[in-house]
Amino acid sequence: MPVKPEILKVTPTARSRLFQVEELELRFSNGVERTYERLASRGNGAVMIIAIDAEDNVILIREYAGGIEDYTLTLPKGLIDPGETAEIAADRELKEEAGFGANKLDFLKEMTSAPNYMGHRISAIIARDLYPCKLEGDEPEPMEVVHWPLSNIEELIALPEFTEGRAIAALYMTRHFLSTESK
Amino acid sequence: MPVKPEILKVTPTARSRLFQVEELELRFSNGVERTYERLASRGNGAVMIIAIDAEDNVILIREYAGGIEDYTLTLPKGLIDPGETAEIAADRELKEEAGFGANKLDFLKEMTSAPNYMGHRISAIIARDLYPCKLEGDEPEPMEVVHWPLSNIEELIALPEFTEGRAIAALYMTRHFLSTESK
Repeated sequence: MPVKPEILKVTPTARSRLFQVEELELRFSNGVERTYERLASRGNGAVMIIAIDAEDNVILIREYAGGIEDYTLTLPKGLIDPGETAEIAADRELKEEAGFGANKLDFLKEMTSAPNYMGHRISAIIARDLYPCKLEGDEPEPMEVVHWPLSNIEELIALPEFTEGRAIAALYMTRHFLSTESK
Repeated sequence: MPVKPEILKVTPTARSRLFQVEELELRFSNGVERTYERLASRGNGAVMIIAIDAEDNVILIREYAGGIEDYTLTLPKGLIDPGETAEIAADRELKEEAGFGANKLDFLKEMTSAPNYMGHRISAIIARDLYPCKLEGDEPEPMEVVHWPLSNIEELIALPEFTEGRAIAALYMTRHFLSTESK
């Protein structure tokens, strides 16, 4: 593994309600100095939930995404609240967004989104043994819930409406996890 | 498909060298109003390259990622320059980061990273029929290039050093693309 660059200085350069931008002054091991910009990490990370119902469907939600100004079909996800484990946050978000609780939760993988520019991490959690349970979330409108056969995720991934890289990764990893588990 | 919320106002709220934050005032079709924050989209998008060598290895790079303050193993990627197609940008970035050009480029999927908070899109491009060709990029140090058997991506994805969701998605989609192509 290479020798990490030395961090000479971290300076906040812009701040809004949700985002904080930092400048990172680095000296690489070859002596080259560079200034990078990144979004500062805040909070406790996030979870993405791959919930599988009794008929081997994965539970998707359709929600409005402000970044792309359109509805998007994806997996339920949300921030981990202070004091929560990833599993507890996954169960809560699934109740809020899709109306199901889960008796069985399995950690799959912690993923980064764009590690060059942000420290944000999201844990993919498989949720099974589901039961109906609706918690009130902070959503401006009810999310549409879609049950999609896990056996046919290729057709889902081909949809222009299903674009989130982390969700594509989570579905494939889930299928691999389940195939090795049943051996 | 639901009726999209009306965008009442978009206001820039913070700006740095790379990032611009915007407030998005929305009125959902049920009348509920919300203010979202997002990173403004700039530029022409990005490409991620899944380059396959003659021995069916995928070409990985190990680079320092400022967001997580660590080296990370991932796929070559970069921004599309003005006037470039995604395929041309993919070929250029592969030359800069890994030292290979590609005679055969196939578009796989356009992915989003975190569509609730940013409009950023990245196109996954498969590169084949490779030949050695090094272009100078703007990297502070040479990137380490790793050739990994495409037949064994599960072991790669299990590594704590391989975390980027979009890269995990791209590898699985590539394997599916190649399996259907050869039928």
